[in-house]
Amino acid sequence: MRDSLLKIRISHEGKTALGPGKIALLQMIEQHGSISAAAKQMQMSYRRAWELVDVMNSCFDQVVVLSSTGGTHGGGAQVTEFGKSLIGAYQKLLQKSAQAAADELDLITEHLKKA
Amino acid sequence: MRDSLLKIRISHEGKTALGPGKIALLQMIEQHGSISAAAKQMQMSYRRAWELVDVMNSCFDQVVVLSSTGGTHGGGAQVTEFGKSLIGAYQKLLQKSAQAAADELDLITEHLKKA
Repeated sequence: MRDSLLKIRISHEGKTALGPGKIALLQMIEQHGSISAAAKQMQMSYRRAWELVDVMNSCFDQVVVLSSTGGTHGGGAQVTEFGKSLIGAYQKLLQKSAQAAADELDLITEHLKKA
Repeated sequence: MRDSLLKIRISHEGKTALGPGKIALLQMIEQHGSISAAAKQMQMSYRRAWELVDVMNSCFDQVVVLSSTGGTHGGGAQVTEFGKSLIGAYQKLLQKSAQAAADELDLITEHLKKA
């Protein structure tokens, strides 16, 4: 509950290099081996998914998602080893933050209106 | 440097209850005693600033910003004691997160492309 309220982004030159949506997309690409299948799972347009991938690939000094051309919506895609290390680092970052700042998170979230 | 790349949001029912922009706005309101002066300082429209205040006031079970009516752009506004406690908690949350997850932040940010 508390974790899911905490959203962490890494910004870079006005763009979001990594955030909850991009990490979820990477995980879907890893699982399905294709950007279009990942987009479908996330109920996101292929164009939007491709843009998110493009932002990641352009923010980092190593490739995050490798895609092969072919077909209308491109061929397969895979998350590189570097991309996988980003997923892992992001997840630990989120976990450690939630743990370290549990008191502050509680103080804030206990005052959020109940649905 | 590292801290400024880390953006933390507290989301609540699809809205951002607190984030970097809202915290900066609260600090400006605290400083200037008015939503319109705070908006001006942040180069934000009065309408936008008012919307951000409205989201905060509607997400939390206590008032975050108290504004008095009067004049075209309302009268004065002040951050409540509760609002001040949110600012403090948010700042500590950010600080503790950056500290606790310094290794992961380094791992991610060292691969961001240099300008």
